Amino acid sequence: MIIGVPKEICPGEQRVALTPANVSALLKKQGVEIKVERNAGDIAGYPDSAFEAAGAKIVDRDEIFSTSQIVLQVQTPGSNTANGNEDLDKLKEGQTLIGMTDPLANPQFAQSLAAKKVSGLALELVPRITRAQAMDVLSSMAMIAGYKCVLLAATESQRMFPMNMTAAGTLNASRVFIMGAGVAGLQACATAKRLGAVVEAYDVRPAAREQILSVGAKPVELDLDTGEAEGSGGYAKAQGEDFLKRQRELMTEVVKEMDVIITTAAVPGAKSPILVTEDMVKAMKPGSIIVDLAAERGGNCEVTEAGKTVVKHGVTIIGPENVPSSVAFHASQMFGKNMENLLNLLLDDNGDLQLDFEDEIVAETVISHNGDVPQARLRDLLSLP
Amino acid sequence: MIIGVPKEICPGEQRVALTPANVSALLKKQGVEIKVERNAGDIAGYPDSAFEAAGAKIVDRDEIFSTSQIVLQVQTPGSNTANGNEDLDKLKEGQTLIGMTDPLANPQFAQSLAAKKVSGLALELVPRITRAQAMDVLSSMAMIAGYKCVLLAATESQRMFPMNMTAAGTLNASRVFIMGAGVAGLQACATAKRLGAVVEAYDVRPAAREQILSVGAKPVELDLDTGEAEGSGGYAKAQGEDFLKRQRELMTEVVKEMDVIITTAAVPGAKSPILVTEDMVKAMKPGSIIVDLAAERGGNCEVTEAGKTVVKHGVTIIGPENVPSSVAFHASQMFGKNMENLLNLLLDDNGDLQLDFEDEIVAETVISHNGDVPQARLRDLLSLP
Repeated sequence: MIIGVPKEICPGEQRVALTPANVSALLKKQGVEIKVERNAGDIAGYPDSAFEAAGAKIVDRDEIFSTSQIVLQVQTPGSNTANGNEDLDKLKEGQTLIGMTDPLANPQFAQSLAAKKVSGLALELVPRITRAQAMDVLSSMAMIAGYKCVLLAATESQRMFPMNMTAAGTLNASRVFIMGAGVAGLQACATAKRLGAVVEAYDVRPAAREQILSVGAKPVELDLDTGEAEGSGGYAKAQGEDFLKRQRELMTEVVKEMDVIITTAAVPGAKSPILVTEDMVKAMKPGSIIVDLAAERGGNCEVTEAGKTVVKHGVTIIGPENVPSSVAFHASQMFGKNMENLLNLLLDDNGDLQLDFEDEIVAETVISHNGDVPQARLRDLLSLP
Repeated sequence: MIIGVPKEICPGEQRVALTPANVSALLKKQGVEIKVERNAGDIAGYPDSAFEAAGAKIVDRDEIFSTSQIVLQVQTPGSNTANGNEDLDKLKEGQTLIGMTDPLANPQFAQSLAAKKVSGLALELVPRITRAQAMDVLSSMAMIAGYKCVLLAATESQRMFPMNMTAAGTLNASRVFIMGAGVAGLQACATAKRLGAVVEAYDVRPAAREQILSVGAKPVELDLDTGEAEGSGGYAKAQGEDFLKRQRELMTEVVKEMDVIITTAAVPGAKSPILVTEDMVKAMKPGSIIVDLAAERGGNCEVTEAGKTVVKHGVTIIGPENVPSSVAFHASQMFGKNMENLLNLLLDDNGDLQLDFEDEIVAETVISHNGDVPQARLRDLLSLP
């Protein structure tokens, strides 16, 4: 079994799909050989010499795509709509591609792979079950994003986060409000708290209350009926417009008091709900900061511009894209470990790929196989019978 | 007594010399009137309406300079070598200018003021005595700089600062090394520690050891004779070349292990000592970060470029300028409080300016008065009798 790791070509992508530690671990399996493209890990802090020391062969890009049976990418052509087609052209019948494919927003990619008889596994579809936790890139990358977005806010802010009592008077701590208390939101709470801010958080799911408290933040309660707010897998469910309108009215009173707002409310495969309207931005103090972690999916803030930092009504709104990539060393370490754990499930003792569709993880994750799209949700989205 | 606060014109300067809270406090003194230039506090988060509510009169720039008896600036023409002469031309006989003048690097400015019979007070010369602590802008601004430089490092780093144990394995904490444990260095220690890094610090002054421990960092010991390292006012003394060479040799072994280095070793009025040579940068791990807080004075790192972020030998070296200005709200709060405290010393009960040269604070701080340069250190630097 030859496993190939090309250098990422998606603009701005700094991660690498495997690290030298994962190479060492996977090479313990009989029959496995690993090829890594020259300089693939340079930006993330994993030089070729480290991959070689771990037992990988450093090769050029063409050799990766022409000789590998399994190709590992962070951004496959499914999620890399900028220039991913270059890679799609290189893939050929019988190969298996594993990586992020943006499956719910780009289900057509599964058909593109199926048409080429390339098997595809979408890491975003790893189910949120205990056994699959160690393969869940959405969780591991959300953790990084939640940490980093607090740094982005603190760096941009004209205020310090911690309270300081100095000879020149007392500086009040910044008030930070986190909207959405999933993995990213909770990590944002913990990081802002660590830096010394006064942290409050809100999530539409009643179960989030205990989690918010557990990371040292204060849950904000709104007078809303939220009994049905949690969907499958612990994600928030999409809500109706009436519910969202009432939520926004109550929220306006909260955001007026804040120095920093971080929004993390993403619904998989759907446009992000607007939690912060332009009117709410107008109500905020001049110099306040919003970091919109949902910027890539349209944003939780009405005036977010994806990939940009803009100032509107005296408030700075940061709409970062691909935040985990900016912490490439640790993000690659976790991504690679997720990948290694998945491969350990998929490869048998001889290093051969075995896709056992009885296994929930396989059934959910494989988006293309034997020229077909087997995954039930994708078939729905694609209106396949 | 009319006190005027112009908007700062120095490129990149976002602070304002007084805040509305200081205006309220100073107006309690009989006979005091305060004029603030339109929009002077906008960027720092203090709108005209807040100044007006505090009792200040919002006026244009010409009125500030033509009617004020005391002009307050963050950057006077002494420290603002970019376009400060515009303001120097506006000052006239009998006025008093208070602000930062960069007195030891630009002692000639005292003569320029004296020639115009303008009295000048350099905030950088406030003595480091207990009674003057509340007026000490070098300390208050160093505190801000020490906090912010850690955020700059963490934002740039490909690694997270805190240790994380996740389903995708354990992420090691970043190792952060602070060189120079003055106010900025100690605040940097505390901030990096807060963020979860493993923090070590070094200072040539033996007294720094206890201070480093007190903020939760580990003191690094080098085998050097440091008995004479502390100069007046608690600042580090300039050292001889032999001492610095030996220090660099021992330091090379330390820096090799670090993910982040923050240098804060500034000697007032002198070029910063080189603590991190290019060879030491070469010895560091790829992806490491250096933040050089002494960049404005030549830098503590040999390859620092002031005002720029450069990558050399795989290491990112950040050479920020005027760091306190980037945290303008809180920096202005402290600067304004320092200014208010100094004015309370200088103004008598009728709001008249009384310069009592028997007072150490006045004697050290006044760089120009009655057409002369009274300050002893400046007379030395200017070779005046």
